[in-house]
Amino acid sequence: MNNQNKQILLAKRPSGTPSKDTFQFVTTDIKQPEKGEVLIRTLYVSVDPYMRGRMIDAPSYVAPFQLNEVIEGGAIGEVIESQSDQFTEGDIVIGGFGWQTYYTAKEKEIRKLDKDIAPISTHLGILGMTGLTAYFGLLEIGKPKEGETVVISGAAGAVGSVVGQIARIKGARVVGIAGSDEKLQYLKEELQFDEAINYKKASNLKDDLANACPNGVDVYFDNVGGEISDAVHELLNKFARIPVCGAISSYNLEAEDIGPRVQTTLIKKSALMQGFTVGDFANLFPSGTAELAKWLNEGKLKYQETIKEGFENIPDAFLDLFKGNNIGKLLVKVADISD
Amino acid sequence: MNNQNKQILLAKRPSGTPSKDTFQFVTTDIKQPEKGEVLIRTLYVSVDPYMRGRMIDAPSYVAPFQLNEVIEGGAIGEVIESQSDQFTEGDIVIGGFGWQTYYTAKEKEIRKLDKDIAPISTHLGILGMTGLTAYFGLLEIGKPKEGETVVISGAAGAVGSVVGQIARIKGARVVGIAGSDEKLQYLKEELQFDEAINYKKASNLKDDLANACPNGVDVYFDNVGGEISDAVHELLNKFARIPVCGAISSYNLEAEDIGPRVQTTLIKKSALMQGFTVGDFANLFPSGTAELAKWLNEGKLKYQETIKEGFENIPDAFLDLFKGNNIGKLLVKVADISD
Repeated sequence: MNNQNKQILLAKRPSGTPSKDTFQFVTTDIKQPEKGEVLIRTLYVSVDPYMRGRMIDAPSYVAPFQLNEVIEGGAIGEVIESQSDQFTEGDIVIGGFGWQTYYTAKEKEIRKLDKDIAPISTHLGILGMTGLTAYFGLLEIGKPKEGETVVISGAAGAVGSVVGQIARIKGARVVGIAGSDEKLQYLKEELQFDEAINYKKASNLKDDLANACPNGVDVYFDNVGGEISDAVHELLNKFARIPVCGAISSYNLEAEDIGPRVQTTLIKKSALMQGFTVGDFANLFPSGTAELAKWLNEGKLKYQETIKEGFENIPDAFLDLFKGNNIGKLLVKVADISD
Repeated sequence: MNNQNKQILLAKRPSGTPSKDTFQFVTTDIKQPEKGEVLIRTLYVSVDPYMRGRMIDAPSYVAPFQLNEVIEGGAIGEVIESQSDQFTEGDIVIGGFGWQTYYTAKEKEIRKLDKDIAPISTHLGILGMTGLTAYFGLLEIGKPKEGETVVISGAAGAVGSVVGQIARIKGARVVGIAGSDEKLQYLKEELQFDEAINYKKASNLKDDLANACPNGVDVYFDNVGGEISDAVHELLNKFARIPVCGAISSYNLEAEDIGPRVQTTLIKKSALMQGFTVGDFANLFPSGTAELAKWLNEGKLKYQETIKEGFENIPDAFLDLFKGNNIGKLLVKVADISD
């Protein structure tokens, strides 16, 4: 340890797609922990589409990032020095300390992880906010019944791939929409989706969806918004439910996101659209995490991580999210755990 | 009685705004009732925006009207001849027999009304589908809490005017959007809305709404869709609820109804949009009707009817709906009740 903390700051608010000059690398001194604090060495950081929303200065469900401050976000680290009774050196902890190599945390900012139930990186993915987002959005809003058809956009992404598996556990017919044949193969062969559609190759997405959903769509888990969602909306059944989780197609738009208004469809189908973020269900996190861990241990849930290496590569990893190349959860490994 | 039945048929499916040639008047012989049937003389017919949707041949929550068939819709009549044990001459009945001066009904097609609890015409309005639409949409989907802000578009219409009054009964702050100063006066002075906005005079509807809703919008009861709804969506509070009841702004559009996509707003606000039709709550009709009648008798609910006279004027009355001139429920009186 060299007493230096590397950090990535928000250098300017992006208009359109973020680029390298959205970010600035700086080096500062590590702050020594005081009583009740611990010093953490970062092991993994999470990069997630929702972080794009925090880069602009507009009211949203989480406060915007501040200019010239460290980019916050889910991260896992190792306690290397403790002035707290609650943590000891070697503890693995999770918190929102974001894109920096060290962090001096107050006790309440972090939570200790159990290293034994699954690889620690899963706590940023299938056992963390990602898995819980899938779990609560599908089960509390989508409420799939056995035999119903569940369509998922962004189906090979971190959230979508968990949604589809939970829908299958609940006995639904599961149809995924994704953007490459590699992803389709993953969805059908690894995750046992009933059908998968490559929207980039579809000459008419609605027709392809209609073929894949002969009984219509009862639940549409929406991760993308835009024209893909417009097409799915045309196939909704009476009393359909749409958990609205993300709209990645719109996050980097410089113009307004314009498309068919949904009111007439919602009325005709007595359908529900409900936006949510995982924090809406915070009081249910313990039961959700427990059930996800149970399914994981029973082999009913699979997960895939794309782990990039190196602190310097965090911005590139984040920008990759919008290129649609990753399967499953995208993480950056910053350091190895101590021996 | 001259043995002749006047009927209005759907002559052709409208593209854009319906016009007189959408309809055809014909005269047929009255069908004499057989055993289990009654002959009804029509007293009032209801004209409603949703009927526009039935004029096109597309799947919806009710079957489309058939070409060259009588326009169906809510109607009240008097039994003038009965071959049924369940009805006697002079009974006032309600059913969906629509735009014709006589109808020979099977017992199960009609329901007897209590003439004493309120003027019979109210059973097509505040005590009928209109009132129930307001009641269930607001209370089952909107779920206003005391002190919350409820915004209503089409606020002076048959449904909207009831929604606002129920919201006030529940202790909400009520803001109506309507299209004339006469309507605003009615909403504020007669119905005691807290604020009312004339969207036709607003230079910036969102600003006017923001002024009228200093604490944001918790419930938006949407009767109109279109740009008015776009503006309201910008003011939603966290966990806002939007019962989507109608989209009259779009019903006569010849082009697609295009506007800002809602996904990002719904996510940021963890907001819910739910389309519905009153039939979704059919199992709750008795309790809803009872509570509406109670409020009406207690003087907590007021209603206004615009009653046009004369069977020949039904199409014009229907077309008036789309001009936005009527306040409250629009009906056509076809005949007087017998002495």
